[in-house]
Amino acid sequence: MEKALKQLKEMDKEIVLLAHTGALLGWDQETYMPVKALQERSEQIALLQGMIHSKMTDPRCGELLNNLGATAATAMGNAGLAELDRAFIRELFRRYNRAVKIPQSLVVEMAKTTSIAQGVWINARKDSDFKLFQPHLEKIITLLKQVADCLGYKDSVYDPLLDEYEPWMTTKEVEQVFSSLKEPLVRLVQQIVASKQKPDETVLAAVFPEHKQLEFNLLVLKAMNFEFERGRLDVSAHPFTTTLGADDIRLTTRYNERFFPTALFGTIHECGHGLYELGFGQELKGTLLGNAASLGIHESQSRLWENMVGRSLAFWKGFFPQLKQFFPDTLKNVEYEQFYRAINAVKPSLVRVEADEVTYNLHIILRFELEKKLISGELKVQDLPQAWDQESKNLLGIEPDNHAQGCLQDIHWSMGAFGYFPTYTLGNLYAAQFFETLCKEQPELEQELEQGNLKPVRTWLLENIHSHGAVYPAGELCRRVTGEKLNPRFFIEYLQKKFGTLYDF
Amino acid sequence: MEKALKQLKEMDKEIVLLAHTGALLGWDQETYMPVKALQERSEQIALLQGMIHSKMTDPRCGELLNNLGATAATAMGNAGLAELDRAFIRELFRRYNRAVKIPQSLVVEMAKTTSIAQGVWINARKDSDFKLFQPHLEKIITLLKQVADCLGYKDSVYDPLLDEYEPWMTTKEVEQVFSSLKEPLVRLVQQIVASKQKPDETVLAAVFPEHKQLEFNLLVLKAMNFEFERGRLDVSAHPFTTTLGADDIRLTTRYNERFFPTALFGTIHECGHGLYELGFGQELKGTLLGNAASLGIHESQSRLWENMVGRSLAFWKGFFPQLKQFFPDTLKNVEYEQFYRAINAVKPSLVRVEADEVTYNLHIILRFELEKKLISGELKVQDLPQAWDQESKNLLGIEPDNHAQGCLQDIHWSMGAFGYFPTYTLGNLYAAQFFETLCKEQPELEQELEQGNLKPVRTWLLENIHSHGAVYPAGELCRRVTGEKLNPRFFIEYLQKKFGTLYDF
Repeated sequence: MEKALKQLKEMDKEIVLLAHTGALLGWDQETYMPVKALQERSEQIALLQGMIHSKMTDPRCGELLNNLGATAATAMGNAGLAELDRAFIRELFRRYNRAVKIPQSLVVEMAKTTSIAQGVWINARKDSDFKLFQPHLEKIITLLKQVADCLGYKDSVYDPLLDEYEPWMTTKEVEQVFSSLKEPLVRLVQQIVASKQKPDETVLAAVFPEHKQLEFNLLVLKAMNFEFERGRLDVSAHPFTTTLGADDIRLTTRYNERFFPTALFGTIHECGHGLYELGFGQELKGTLLGNAASLGIHESQSRLWENMVGRSLAFWKGFFPQLKQFFPDTLKNVEYEQFYRAINAVKPSLVRVEADEVTYNLHIILRFELEKKLISGELKVQDLPQAWDQESKNLLGIEPDNHAQGCLQDIHWSMGAFGYFPTYTLGNLYAAQFFETLCKEQPELEQELEQGNLKPVRTWLLENIHSHGAVYPAGELCRRVTGEKLNPRFFIEYLQKKFGTLYDF
Repeated sequence: MEKALKQLKEMDKEIVLLAHTGALLGWDQETYMPVKALQERSEQIALLQGMIHSKMTDPRCGELLNNLGATAATAMGNAGLAELDRAFIRELFRRYNRAVKIPQSLVVEMAKTTSIAQGVWINARKDSDFKLFQPHLEKIITLLKQVADCLGYKDSVYDPLLDEYEPWMTTKEVEQVFSSLKEPLVRLVQQIVASKQKPDETVLAAVFPEHKQLEFNLLVLKAMNFEFERGRLDVSAHPFTTTLGADDIRLTTRYNERFFPTALFGTIHECGHGLYELGFGQELKGTLLGNAASLGIHESQSRLWENMVGRSLAFWKGFFPQLKQFFPDTLKNVEYEQFYRAINAVKPSLVRVEADEVTYNLHIILRFELEKKLISGELKVQDLPQAWDQESKNLLGIEPDNHAQGCLQDIHWSMGAFGYFPTYTLGNLYAAQFFETLCKEQPELEQELEQGNLKPVRTWLLENIHSHGAVYPAGELCRRVTGEKLNPRFFIEYLQKKFGTLYDF
């Protein structure tokens, strides 16, 4: 048993090393790579992905898992194993199973189809031409249904797709959570829109030079205890966080000199992801368990830092005096409360990535409902634009003028990423639930934030969430940390309290 | 036959992609990687190297080569093949043979030994303690003899080691070339030392801010036609050039604000290497033939640009007015001839990497003679320091005060790189021989350089040398380009003319 476990760990270790090497290829492509290097870079990435896939589907892995008693029924391995080893086997069994169930020909077909579809999507969005994209999306959905069939499911064809990003969560569970979220959110937005108390957004209408923004970003990252000996911050067109090694986490952000919040909140958000990756326990490093419990949990870490901490009044009481030192002229006549109001302005808008904390989740609910229907066949691809516009009106009260601002705005579907969107809102919900517990357990937190001390947040997250990596499935982690399963009540209450005060209702 | 060739090309292609991926791991380590990422990075590199080695020694490769008629006798494959394919098979046969002849256990033993030895060497050099390093060097030499035995040789045990870096060149040939070089060099140095006409080096004794140096470096790189869409310039502790893709060449340099020549000539040198790598013919890209003919030829490209072009009077007539615009105060009262003299000052010194164009090669001859004797057993490792100091006195007229400045100064031996040093001087010799032909074929060259136009150099090198990659062995390439085999006469005459004028004899 020991020997089989050792062999599996050695096989896993090589996959981790190759995955991190692949991440470097991707990071470099988005940051420093010269433009004409793209073609060979794609081939390098494809070769590595192929090697990783071969290793993941190595028949020896299946035999060893079998020897250790991992079955579809328990998936945890023999009861005699240590808790960590059982978690390792659970994750390995899950990965192996998903990988071997999908035939290589389907993997290749999907890769080709989405590669072409992404190129077409860029042009379709540019020209706001849905008809151009339609046949590609149809093909992707056909292939995704085949993927779902290969993986198998009990209740919903959407289940195995969701499971790729949010393991062990079912479509039904997401539906229940989202349905209790939707109505309060819609009402909240209506209250805000109706409110006479509007923030003064002109305080942000100024030029904030990039190099000064960078310096302030670094100051905040240091306050968040981001370890620069184990990571970096660079610039890319789209912000992201990527893991090049257990001790090598790279964050990126982008700068807009005419809209200060873009870079700073992007940086805090990515650092939230980065601290999670940096915080996995020593014994999980370089293994399959040195990973997030789920994408929802990952997003909870970025959102908790970005919104619950970074957009809080206490944070700005602490950091605004420092920000003023970086931009003394621009912010001369601005008070921190004014600034706080401006960065928390809520306005229904058409574009998800520009949405505020409240309306953001309505964008997600819209996508979740539509992509479920697309996969089940209830909605035809040709009818998507109309359905999108109708849903947008229902949820946000506004309708896009064109498809570029509507159903063509996101890259996800062109990549075949169905089941990904809900994890964004699950992240917000987990974040609020974790933050509630954190505040209860650390009653001094607000005063600490007001003094610019972010360490209590880092310490609590490290101990309660980060250090566990993927040892516990997301649902179990949530129960362990907060005492109950995912409950949207915390997020709704958080929003009502914060925005009720801001918008005076 | 077609099919076998196709299979070999596919196998080679994967090796090229993995090698470029490995180069990215190395580049990132020297430029942007956070410090604590080092341990896992070493594991990533080792894993990739192991994969490349497996692919290189794949028995199918041997069978296919055999089918194509590649034997130790001809090594070129069937006469019926196209010229390019024969060259491909020649190189592949060479690589495969070298790789399979050395048993995996010896490869691993050597990797471990040199890894430890490098760490010890750093400390030994710091404390100038040769005794500390001695047993490690002894072990390395024992292993290198085993490597040489595995590879086989006719005349000299040093042959198969030299062949790693300078394929198809023999120890005897290097000895002949170096012996006709040594005496004229020693005499030239004596004449320079005795000369009363000394350059005024105070013109370089100023502070040249790094960001201004960078701007000027970029200006020179553009003039050299370095394509920034296919490459970059970054900063590292030791300058290097590395190939991350056929269209992705990365250069690095380092800045010394108190000694201007360091960064600029380092940059020109690396760009010389980079232009070679960028210039391989389209049909060679991504194959084994998209490589230098030898390290000596590679070094000829960097040295030709650095010394024959970059340290020429004509170059500075063209570029000094531009340099003055970057450092108007510092260079206010300096004329280009003065500057030219200062950057060409010759002085026997103890440290190779700081040596000038003339004395540099005496450092190399010293190392070549000693490392040959170490490998043959004629010189015992324990007697190395004394032999070094004696040889230094004979060749350079000066003796080191300590071993750190003597036989411990270079990293090469701790890495097991015996046979590498001579390629530096071979590079200088090839450079002078190529440059002589270039000047003959382009009689307007001096006037072009005086106008800051470097394009004729780039174009001639591209056409005559770069585009051929590894299609011709170094010796054959030299004959094709210059009409004769390597002849040290050109370098000696170049030095005599240049430094005779500078030092007035």
